[in-house]
This record gives sequence, C-alpha cells and structure tokens, in this order.
Amino acid sequence: MLDKDYLLPIDALNLIINNVTKKVLRVEVLKIEECYNRILAEDIYSPEYLPAFSRSTVDGYAVSSEDTYGASESAPAYLTVKYDIPMGVVPDFKIGKLEASTIATGAMLPDGADAVVMLENAQIVSNNMIEVIKPVASGENVIQKGEDFKKGELIVKKGSKLRAQEIGALGAVGITNIKVYKKPVVSIISTGDEIIPHYLPATPGKIRDINSLTLAGFVQDSGGIAVKEGIVIDDYKMIRNIIEKALMSSDMVLISGGTSAGTKDMVSQIINDIGKPGVLFHGLSLKPGKPMIGGVIDIIPIFGLPGHPVAVVICFDLIVKPVLNFLLGVQNDRFPNKTIIAKIAKNVASTAGREDHIRVFIEERDTGFIAHPILGKSGLVSLLLKGDGTVVIPPHKTGLDAGEEVEVRVY
Amino acid sequence: MLDKDYLLPIDALNLIINNVTKKVLRVEVLKIEECYNRILAEDIYSPEYLPAFSRSTVDGYAVSSEDTYGASESAPAYLTVKYDIPMGVVPDFKIGKLEASTIATGAMLPDGADAVVMLENAQIVSNNMIEVIKPVASGENVIQKGEDFKKGELIVKKGSKLRAQEIGALGAVGITNIKVYKKPVVSIISTGDEIIPHYLPATPGKIRDINSLTLAGFVQDSGGIAVKEGIVIDDYKMIRNIIEKALMSSDMVLISGGTSAGTKDMVSQIINDIGKPGVLFHGLSLKPGKPMIGGVIDIIPIFGLPGHPVAVVICFDLIVKPVLNFLLGVQNDRFPNKTIIAKIAKNVASTAGREDHIRVFIEERDTGFIAHPILGKSGLVSLLLKGDGTVVIPPHKTGLDAGEEVEVRVY
Repeated sequence: MLDKDYLLPIDALNLIINNVTKKVLRVEVLKIEECYNRILAEDIYSPEYLPAFSRSTVDGYAVSSEDTYGASESAPAYLTVKYDIPMGVVPDFKIGKLEASTIATGAMLPDGADAVVMLENAQIVSNNMIEVIKPVASGENVIQKGEDFKKGELIVKKGSKLRAQEIGALGAVGITNIKVYKKPVVSIISTGDEIIPHYLPATPGKIRDINSLTLAGFVQDSGGIAVKEGIVIDDYKMIRNIIEKALMSSDMVLISGGTSAGTKDMVSQIINDIGKPGVLFHGLSLKPGKPMIGGVIDIIPIFGLPGHPVAVVICFDLIVKPVLNFLLGVQNDRFPNKTIIAKIAKNVASTAGREDHIRVFIEERDTGFIAHPILGKSGLVSLLLKGDGTVVIPPHKTGLDAGEEVEVRVY
Repeated sequence: MLDKDYLLPIDALNLIINNVTKKVLRVEVLKIEECYNRILAEDIYSPEYLPAFSRSTVDGYAVSSEDTYGASESAPAYLTVKYDIPMGVVPDFKIGKLEASTIATGAMLPDGADAVVMLENAQIVSNNMIEVIKPVASGENVIQKGEDFKKGELIVKKGSKLRAQEIGALGAVGITNIKVYKKPVVSIISTGDEIIPHYLPATPGKIRDINSLTLAGFVQDSGGIAVKEGIVIDDYKMIRNIIEKALMSSDMVLISGGTSAGTKDMVSQIINDIGKPGVLFHGLSLKPGKPMIGGVIDIIPIFGLPGHPVAVVICFDLIVKPVLNFLLGVQNDRFPNKTIIAKIAKNVASTAGREDHIRVFIEERDTGFIAHPILGKSGLVSLLLKGDGTVVIPPHKTGLDAGEEVEVRVY
C-alpha cells in the first residue's frame, strides 16, 4: 500500500481524540504540597486580597507624599520621625502632618502614609528629624492592598499544570486543598514469540523486552501511572485475554511488538473483535512509525506500536503523548517540546506526502548549532541513545538541503 | 555599593563549585526500573553482543546473496524454499546452494544465509520455488550480531541522566542493577518576623510563606529531596540553631526571606560564625536577585535567597540549580533549558555591567515569536504566574532595541 493511503500523524491523532472526548476525567482533592506537576481540575479564584494590606517594598520612611512635594538637596523637606514599623507588626498610630515612621521592607503602611522614602533619599539631621531630598509620588515604593490578586480574581485556570510557581501562588492566598485530575493508568503489553523479560539470560533466537521499559518511563514522565502487564506470545487468545484484562483497569492500553505482518493483523483483528469503534487507523504516513495501529474501545484509547525502539519513541511523542495529555486534563501545554534552531549538515531525501522524522546529533559552533543526521537501520537499539533531537521533514517537502535551517525538537 | 563591586552570577557559581568539589557523592545500587531520571554513578559496558545473533529486519527469504547476483524481472534467480524460520526459533539447518528459507522480521539468520530478500522482490512460482527479481548484497536487510553493541562497549557514561531511552538500552543487554548517585537532601528554611505558614489564616501585617513551596518544587523537579525546616523569626540564635540542625542532615541549605538589610547581614554573620570558608559572596551583579548570599560550610553549600518570589526563581535557576546538578552527579546536561528565538516587542533599558533578567510573555505570530516584556514591582507574587520565559540582557549591553532577536529561556 502506498503512503498516500495512510493518515498523517496529526489526522490520526484527531481521529482518536474525537472518539475519547466523552470520557469524564476523575478528580481527587489533595493538599497543595502534594500537587507539584499535577493538572488542576477547577478554576481557582483568590479568596482574599494579596497583599492583604499595603506594604513597603524598600527599607525607608513611611510618609504622606504631599509632605515631600518640591523637596530637593538644596530645599529638603523636614519630617519628624515619631514611630517605627518593624516587619510583621500592625501599626496602631496615624502619621500626622510632617510626620514619618521608619519602615522595613515588607512591613505594613500606617494610616496617613501613602508612600515610602528610600533610606538613601533621606538624611538624619537629629534624633527624630530627617531631611528628605527627593519627593515621592503617592504609591511610590508601596505595593497596594490587592495589587497582586483581588479577592475573587482568577489565579490559576482549570487544566493548568501546577508548577512550583503555581503552588507558591496558591499558598500565598491561603489555599490549602485543591481538586486535581487523577493520574491516568496506562497498561503496557509486549507481544512477540521472541521477546523475553530484560532480567532473563539471553537465549539464542530471543531478544529482551526493552519497549516496556522505555514506554513506562515516558508514561511516568508525562504524568501517568504505568502498569506493565508483561509479555505474551503471538497468539490470538493470549493477546485478547491480556488486552481485555488491561481494559478493565486502564485509561489507555499500549501494545508493543508484533512486528510481523501476521501479528499486526492479529492485534488489529482483536481490537475490532473486542468492541466499538475498534481500529481507527492501521498504518501511518510516517517514517519511522508506519506500522502503528490506533483504536478506541468504548472510550479507552488503545495503540499497537511498532516493535522498533526508535519508532516507538516517535509514535509516543506524536500520537500517544497528546492523547495522554487529554486524559491528564492538560488544557494549555503551550511549549511541549524544547526546540532549537540549527542548520542541517547534509542533504536528506524524503518521500513527498509522508512525515519523515530524522534523528540528529547537535554540534555547537560559534556560528550556531549544526544538526548532523544520524543514519542507521531502524531496528537498532543504540540509535535510542545517539542523537540529541529530531528534525521533521513535513509531507509537502521532498527533503532538506545542506545548510537549510531546521527546528530540532530536543529530547 | 555599586553593582561593579559585586560578582556576576557565573563567577559566583564557580566560586561555590570550587569550594564543594572535594565532596564525595554517595551512591546506591537499584534495579533499573527504579532509576528513571536518576544519575548514573558508573560507566556501563555491555556484558554481551546486541543483537546476540544476526537478525532479519524484514519479512522475506533468507538466502546466500551470491545466489541472487544478476537477478532481474527478465532473468530471475530461482531458489528452493526448504525451510521456515519463525520469530524466536533457532534454525537447526544450513541453507544450501540455491536454497532459501522464509524468515520473519526479527528472526535469526540460519547458517549459510547472509542476506534477506524482501517479500515484494520475490514471487512464488510453485509450492516450494520462488523467483527473485532483484539481487541482495551481503548483509542486506540484516542486523549483524553486535551491530548495536559489542561485548565490552561503553553504553552509558557515568554522570548521565537516565532517561527512559537509557533504561531501555540497559535492559536490552540484560543489565538489571546499577549504581546511581543518592538524591541530595536540600533543607529549606524561611526567615522573617512577618512570615506565617501558608495554611494559617491571614492576620494583619503577616504574609504567608510561599518561597518554601516554590523552592521545594524546584528541588524535587531537579532530582533532589526537599526538606522544609519551617519558618523562624529574625533572631540570631533561632536562625543559627535551625541552620546548624539543617547542616547535620543536608547536602545543601537554602534560606529564603530576611529581606531587611539587618536580617541579611545577620544570615551572613551566622554563616561566617558557624564554619569555614563561610560567606563567599554577598550581593550579585544581577537584577532581580541582587541581595543573594552564597557560602560554604565545610563542603556544604548554603544560600541566602532574596525574599521576593520572582528573584528566588532567577537565583535558583542561575546559581542553586547548577550547584545541585553538581551534587546530583550530573556531568552532561547539554541543553538544560528550553529556548526559543523571539523578537523583543519594545525597547528595554539595562545597566551596563549587570545581568538583567526580563520576564516575557510569548505571542506566536505567523512571522515567528514575539517576546513582550512584563514589568511589575519585584515583590509581586502574581508575576510568578505571568510570563512564559526569561530574556537575559548580558552585562556588556545597555539594553535591547524593539525588534531585536532574543533567546527566551522558556519555563
């Protein structure tokens, strides 16, 4: 079959997403300290003003700004320092006309004061008298009550990934418990008569299961829970049983291996036999990754991944991860991949109508980055470790010319 | 004091690193499945050949390549298919002159065969006879024994971060247990008379501790273990006690807060009083982040971070994280930050001799990314959430011109 008979990755992805949108994501309520890198399942509004009071941003003198108007080195404003406001204390006085109070950074502004004169713009002329040599405007060196967040203001949107920064901001307004989406459970199945667990000794004709190990890592890094279901031989009943078992406890099922044409057809047949809508695509206009299978049973996405380790990485990145993001509840993953701009080191040919993903090694020169294509047979494991990133040749292009600028998705 | 009296961040970082290089990093032996994102503490060499046998990369016919030389559609080579090699089976025969065997992708090449003819280049003419219409070269469609890794070949270097790919490759050669560096323990202390835990109700004059929450997240994301030691008031004895306690069980100590000049001097004094070499820098030629303190006690790095949340993020990224990477054992973090190229939306002024870090919001246009500087008072918490990344104005520049290309470190 020609590549043009297959879907492009983006179309295959949309087909899957369209068939899982009915899924209601489960939520749980956790303490904010337990929510680093989780996905928020509710909009969070500030329950209070932040700051709760007007604060000084410098060490200096709290004043009424009017009292400093026109002040200069030659004609300073003279103010009486009657009070002191340390950090964390509520001033119980009012600044009167031509009065001032020493104030620490972060301390609360007293009544009657609307600005703070920095230490370096005032000189002490006697025990309780300062001369201010530069005027301050109303609000100068002050963070106003509610300037950070107003009471009722939206702080973090539903679907946001909670970085350390978001957790800090939630803590700042006193939020202690929040709703996050439960981590989706992803079952990983390896198939193949020749596949043995990685911890067994090599025997002739057998190869160790590495795709379960890489897929489990990708799933965990993406925020999911990886459940390794183990290895089954290429047998209809065995594969069907393990898939049906996995479907009962998973939000997504990944099957790797089945590299022979017969097995691929068997996995496809099993998906169709288990339930609807079944297989949605079988084969992609993509290299590497062409033999990928994607389907949905009820509302659970299920993928048959190629056996070649490098193809598994590409298929995960392009199709599985965006679907997993949907199941995670992610709604605004603006820059999901690190990218750098580089010049490609040599000509690379590509077939029109197909997305080619070329692994590259990045060399850093004074003039910028150079991307060296890494060529190798697609079954090699060692290719996984070589290379700093991937360059995509889009379907409308028939290759890259040496020196052409490319965007490298860095691993 | 003028900025020129302070160190640039890179010089401050090197000063700290030079004083902790004597530290011997602790290691532990774990199963590879427990080592995702950990740092490898030994060079790993392959204990065997991968693949352990020569394998077919396609479904087809295992042949002696000599028998196909000169084959074409008009003059095919006729071969007798005497055998079948399924996946995972060791062939117990030898391919003779003008003989062939069907072979599955991934299956083991039999004796006498040195190449595989793809299915589409052969036609079945009778039950056990094929005509080959295209010659194969020796080794074609075959991965040779050891082509991936030779026995004794270095697979993953000491100091490498073990991504899912590395874990997969280690599994492929049957490695089950490896030495990784223990996660460094980072103690986090907040100081300030006005600071209360985030879970307490706001009272006038007090502000909640958010830096412990953000720092704990950054430490965990970097691969360390964060231990929150709590909040202490600005008192010499209290701060000294909590730092001394932290030093006994930590690989690094972070102190945030102490925004007032008096407290900063006190933290600096305490570090010098506890041990040698003590404070190595007090103040940086950096904005935001100028008031940072860095020191070492014995071989444990200790940092006094500014109280302003945005400055904490910058100081962590520039100084704390690289030191933490050293304690993690990381030796080749080639692309630590996501970066994108953007055009700056407007002029930004900067002081020569100082590194200015400008938070920006990224707008995606057809012509590329536009970076909009976000201006705001440095004490604001909400700035943490705004912005997609940081643009650095290096010390030798006095600003950026609107439209200038900048590199944005994306969060």
